[in-house]
Amino acid sequence: EKPNSSDWDRWFMMGLIGVVVGIFAFLIHQIIDYLFKVKWELVEKYIQHNDFQTTWMLVLGIGLAMILVSSGLVAFFSPSGSPSGLPEVIGYLNGVSIRHIFNIRTFFGSFFSCALAVSAGMFCGPEAPMVHAGAVIACGLSQFKSETLRINLPFFTRFRNSADKRQFITAGAAAGISSVFRAPVGGLLFVLEDVATFWNIKLAWQTFFCCLVASFTAEVLSSSFCDFIYQGYFGFFKAEQGVIFWVKDMLDISILAIIPTVILGVLGGVLGSLFVFLNIRINKLRMKMFNSIQNNFLRQLSKVLETSLILVVTITVTVYVPYFFSCSPNQIPSQLNNVSEHNSHGEQTAWDINEYNCPPGSSWVAPNGTIMSNHSLNQAAALLVKNGNQGVKLLYQRGTHEKFGFPALFTCLVLYFLISCWTAGSAASTGLVIPMVYTGGILGRLVGVILVSIFGVQHDEYGAWIDPGLFAVIGSASYFSGVTRLTISLTVIMVEITNDAQSILLVMIAVMVAKTVGSYFNQPLFSSLMQLKCIPYLEAEPIVVHGKRKVNLEMFSAKDVMKPCITINLQESVFVLAELLSTTSHNGFPVVYRPAPGQDEVFLGTITRLDLYILLSNNKVFLTPDKDKCSVVLTYPEVTVEKQPDEARIDRLLNKYSTDPQYQHLFINLEPYINKSAVTVQANFSLQRTYVIFRTLGLRHLVVTDLQNRAVGIITRKDINSSHIEKKLTQLDAGKLDSEEELLKYNKHTQ
Amino acid sequence: EKPNSSDWDRWFMMGLIGVVVGIFAFLIHQIIDYLFKVKWELVEKYIQHNDFQTTWMLVLGIGLAMILVSSGLVAFFSPSGSPSGLPEVIGYLNGVSIRHIFNIRTFFGSFFSCALAVSAGMFCGPEAPMVHAGAVIACGLSQFKSETLRINLPFFTRFRNSADKRQFITAGAAAGISSVFRAPVGGLLFVLEDVATFWNIKLAWQTFFCCLVASFTAEVLSSSFCDFIYQGYFGFFKAEQGVIFWVKDMLDISILAIIPTVILGVLGGVLGSLFVFLNIRINKLRMKMFNSIQNNFLRQLSKVLETSLILVVTITVTVYVPYFFSCSPNQIPSQLNNVSEHNSHGEQTAWDINEYNCPPGSSWVAPNGTIMSNHSLNQAAALLVKNGNQGVKLLYQRGTHEKFGFPALFTCLVLYFLISCWTAGSAASTGLVIPMVYTGGILGRLVGVILVSIFGVQHDEYGAWIDPGLFAVIGSASYFSGVTRLTISLTVIMVEITNDAQSILLVMIAVMVAKTVGSYFNQPLFSSLMQLKCIPYLEAEPIVVHGKRKVNLEMFSAKDVMKPCITINLQESVFVLAELLSTTSHNGFPVVYRPAPGQDEVFLGTITRLDLYILLSNNKVFLTPDKDKCSVVLTYPEVTVEKQPDEARIDRLLNKYSTDPQYQHLFINLEPYINKSAVTVQANFSLQRTYVIFRTLGLRHLVVTDLQNRAVGIITRKDINSSHIEKKLTQLDAGKLDSEEELLKYNKHTQ
Repeated sequence: EKPNSSDWDRWFMMGLIGVVVGIFAFLIHQIIDYLFKVKWELVEKYIQHNDFQTTWMLVLGIGLAMILVSSGLVAFFSPSGSPSGLPEVIGYLNGVSIRHIFNIRTFFGSFFSCALAVSAGMFCGPEAPMVHAGAVIACGLSQFKSETLRINLPFFTRFRNSADKRQFITAGAAAGISSVFRAPVGGLLFVLEDVATFWNIKLAWQTFFCCLVASFTAEVLSSSFCDFIYQGYFGFFKAEQGVIFWVKDMLDISILAIIPTVILGVLGGVLGSLFVFLNIRINKLRMKMFNSIQNNFLRQLSKVLETSLILVVTITVTVYVPYFFSCSPNQIPSQLNNVSEHNSHGEQTAWDINEYNCPPGSSWVAPNGTIMSNHSLNQAAALLVKNGNQGVKLLYQRGTHEKFGFPALFTCLVLYFLISCWTAGSAASTGLVIPMVYTGGILGRLVGVILVSIFGVQHDEYGAWIDPGLFAVIGSASYFSGVTRLTISLTVIMVEITNDAQSILLVMIAVMVAKTVGSYFNQPLFSSLMQLKCIPYLEAEPIVVHGKRKVNLEMFSAKDVMKPCITINLQESVFVLAELLSTTSHNGFPVVYRPAPGQDEVFLGTITRLDLYILLSNNKVFLTPDKDKCSVVLTYPEVTVEKQPDEARIDRLLNKYSTDPQYQHLFINLEPYINKSAVTVQANFSLQRTYVIFRTLGLRHLVVTDLQNRAVGIITRKDINSSHIEKKLTQLDAGKLDSEEELLKYNKHTQ
Repeated sequence: EKPNSSDWDRWFMMGLIGVVVGIFAFLIHQIIDYLFKVKWELVEKYIQHNDFQTTWMLVLGIGLAMILVSSGLVAFFSPSGSPSGLPEVIGYLNGVSIRHIFNIRTFFGSFFSCALAVSAGMFCGPEAPMVHAGAVIACGLSQFKSETLRINLPFFTRFRNSADKRQFITAGAAAGISSVFRAPVGGLLFVLEDVATFWNIKLAWQTFFCCLVASFTAEVLSSSFCDFIYQGYFGFFKAEQGVIFWVKDMLDISILAIIPTVILGVLGGVLGSLFVFLNIRINKLRMKMFNSIQNNFLRQLSKVLETSLILVVTITVTVYVPYFFSCSPNQIPSQLNNVSEHNSHGEQTAWDINEYNCPPGSSWVAPNGTIMSNHSLNQAAALLVKNGNQGVKLLYQRGTHEKFGFPALFTCLVLYFLISCWTAGSAASTGLVIPMVYTGGILGRLVGVILVSIFGVQHDEYGAWIDPGLFAVIGSASYFSGVTRLTISLTVIMVEITNDAQSILLVMIAVMVAKTVGSYFNQPLFSSLMQLKCIPYLEAEPIVVHGKRKVNLEMFSAKDVMKPCITINLQESVFVLAELLSTTSHNGFPVVYRPAPGQDEVFLGTITRLDLYILLSNNKVFLTPDKDKCSVVLTYPEVTVEKQPDEARIDRLLNKYSTDPQYQHLFINLEPYINKSAVTVQANFSLQRTYVIFRTLGLRHLVVTDLQNRAVGIITRKDINSSHIEKKLTQLDAGKLDSEEELLKYNKHTQ
């Protein structure tokens, strides 16, 4: 039915998605950088004169204006666009259909909401919304039509099916993260490891291409624009800019570095799982509170207010905490001092937010040719104001052992952790990646500072590894892994964003330890969020816990979870079909037929609700009882429509058919339309294998047959979900207590 | 049946495999480096006096001694160990069982063969044999027993099943490539992209751990040993050593670099597919020639002789080609001159093979503190003698625009390409990765040199990208991709081995172009090799060509490829079973039963040959006709054995049962032993989906049923193989010519 082709159009589409995603990634970065700069330049003179009051008012005022728009967009303009969108995308790619998430409205709402929220100074990043944006772009472009814009172009119609759509969305999501991070391979792997459920090597290649194009587009555009001003250098990639958190100094590493790495891994894992725990708690509370408000407008308004409250706290912390910290000399990495190239980029002389309320410094060239400077910085300001991209750069800088002290790091870690945890899930489109990288970086630097305070600043080659900058990288990886439990993609991302393949082994160790520790406490963040949002996600392996113990699903069979099913005859009357459609909400029906009179009805194939709608609305296929074979068969294009037809019309039609008795004598021969390649399992098929088949083949429903191939039940996504199986088992358990010893078989190794 | 557990033992086993693989990777590197050094130190004085004759004789003599052992090991000691072993591992993981590939004999044979072949100076590398070695180690360790060594320890018995074995082998193969390349993530992705057919995210995590441990072990050991001599510095990783082809100078890259990158991609693709074409031709010829020799000893001997002939040619080229090239000054990368750190490692003063027959130079420190040197090098010698790791380092060096001239590069490219193509597949255990990286590097540098000759040596920042070192990296990726058609893993490997995330976009572009160009001409190398070796590999998607056009398998159904099957009754007589087993060679049988008298026999499940053997050898399960239910049921451990029992004994048994008429009246009730979770498809199930189910679920046989659930046929791996489908279609085509238009449906887009 689906034609093979040279697939040039698919590759073209992948490229197109890449270009568009790249442009939006470029835009979001530009908007954020521009607004951020404008905001702080405005308050420069106040802060330099220690006028915290005015600074606070100005920053908060601007921030509030932004956050009201940002939050308003999410709450009123595109309420279906959830705060981050990532769990929804993961759910969709797992096979759950969620309404409205790929709307063009949702896209613009979440895009601008995200840009404004980050610019306002919230402790969040633009990554998860960019994944969502990439998915929406991919969905819209590949279908070449939009309901909202009433566009329906006659191109690329062959992609208008759910399998192809899913593939493009996978690629778009990967391109989103690739382009925003400048980590093309890392983004791709992130999607393959955590987001996509179904993928094959061919899709991986196409996604690779899409990510390449997206990163490339973003880089070409970024090469010549800064704050939307054309800078020249079009298409000229500075080595400095290509890698966002470039670590310039390689270190010789001793095997002893493993000890603090493992400690960091444990800390990252504990802190990460604490983050997940707190965030889920906060979101549950938030949901409960908001759901208790009946009036829709008031509910949305209170969401906006909550987000504003978060902003007020954030800005207050950002502006006032530096007040308690004095200035310290701004340490420039020692190695850079004598590299003349550094001078050409030296905008150090301009005011930098780092300096905050410190006396302005100046740079000069010493007689021996090195650059001297007496700049000073406020450590807390550097950490809190410059959160996000620039802050991470400061944390990762090597050779700056004493740039940040213990008090500043610790204060900022606690505040940043708590506030970012509160922010995630509020009514603004926010991402978590930058906060994770940043929190982890502070944590790592803290451990590094402790090491330095024990062993002193080492300059010989054996002690060079005791560098807080190195541990900041490891800390980021560890905390990131503690929250998301990613491994492979995270390692690749860390290498891509720091360009430091040298410490890859340490990063891997930290990631492994953090993941193990985190998994001991709870589930990864995105799984928990999906559970919270009631998205019936199917894990790679079913984990069913019954009475605190893992159940071996090999002990159960398909019949234990199946629902009884309603079957349709191969020749069914219009009346029956219409009644069936209007009384049930099932999406697929098994079609049965009687091979010979007197024999049992056997299962033949399945037919979907949508197909039945189409058939019922084409009355030329109706048969009278005397005509045995229908001469009119709908063609393939007539049958394949992508979307449910107008509901009201269908309702009218069904109503007509199910009331008028004449339709009891009109039949439809379903034979040409049923899916004969529907997978079935036998009733006593092992439940474990049923689950594997269901998930591996990406089914939506699975018909259960008995030994005579009679359809005896049906299993849908909801029936096979771990939590549903748990419920079923409890019922079974209550029913037949005697079979309990058989019910649970544990591994003897664990006891 | 298989218990769930906390899986600590699995993780432990993964770690253990990692440690052992790491040790062997360390060993192979040490052996190669040591032998290589010894060999060239021996001839140092002759070559410095231009005594090519003696040099040739000595090098060849030593080389021949090594290659005779190396080749002899493969030919006589472990003939089942194929030259590289990689296609066999890929085939095994796809579900094909190949005998003897995981023997301990094969392991030692191929390990030492590889070490000696590389040391002898063949144009090959140790990677593919290390993948094989990793797989063997994983297989042996995870099973905790060895037939050859007659060891059968009672630990980890739960891993003695084919699914777990496959997982460990996947991890072991990944660890092999990771540790030998110091690219833990790249190795892992290489295996996931190209080697493993079945894997899930859990396995990916475990493999990640295994690779981490393997790389770590190899690095710790390498940190303190050089040529087997303890150097101190135990556990101290020099930044220099961690990344094998470390590129130190980042470049600002202009968008114009894309033009030569695309050209390099095309060249790499063309050259890569040419390599595949030639190599397959050569191997076919080789097979034909050797198979024409009847006597086994003579056949193996002639293989050894052929390998020796290759060595003679290789050594002659290596030693004599530099004779035609004069000496040129040895350019040290300009940036390094004023970095004092470089001096401390400066063993430049010692003789280096680069210098070959050139007059010895010396280094001194100039008054302004920079190091001056008047070393010279023989370009061809540097390229040919230092092939492999060290050569790649030279090629990738940046800031050395004129180190290698056009004539030397071109000559070496042609020679290296041809000889490495001849070498691959000869009777020594050889890998192809280093030759691919190296050939590609020469190609890239050639393009770089052409650019330099057009635009001159550029030193300003806009022209800095015209650096042959940069293009050498891109060339390597491009040629590698042209041969293997890898994408993601290759990009990650390139970043990991060069530590240059900056040029990742260019590498990705080259890889994409080369893959596309290469795929236009032929299949990737490993697929072609598997076809050559008749390994029935199942591709991710079936590509069936009929009459030069791709066939849409949706048009066909399962019944078109199935074989008729022999069914067994649920209660079957011992006599019948024994006869069945001795007259057929099938591995699985459908078990049927008659639900009620008069009804048709329906399909119930499958039973394997092995299970039947076990049942037949336990005569306590035999039933007499009057006893309906057997009280004795074999327990799970009794039934699960991993290996076929002694063949002679089975033959005797089968013979007894099938001749003695008393066994006609003894029955076995197969019910407790059959696999009721056997997947079936209906006869008119689409062939495309049948293929997908077969491959995705990793089946070995698939029973085809009709609408009444009667077993009507069986599909095995061989039946569903693309080439077999092609053959079947040709028969169908010849049979019913009238259905031709239905037979082939083409995509209208392509025409």
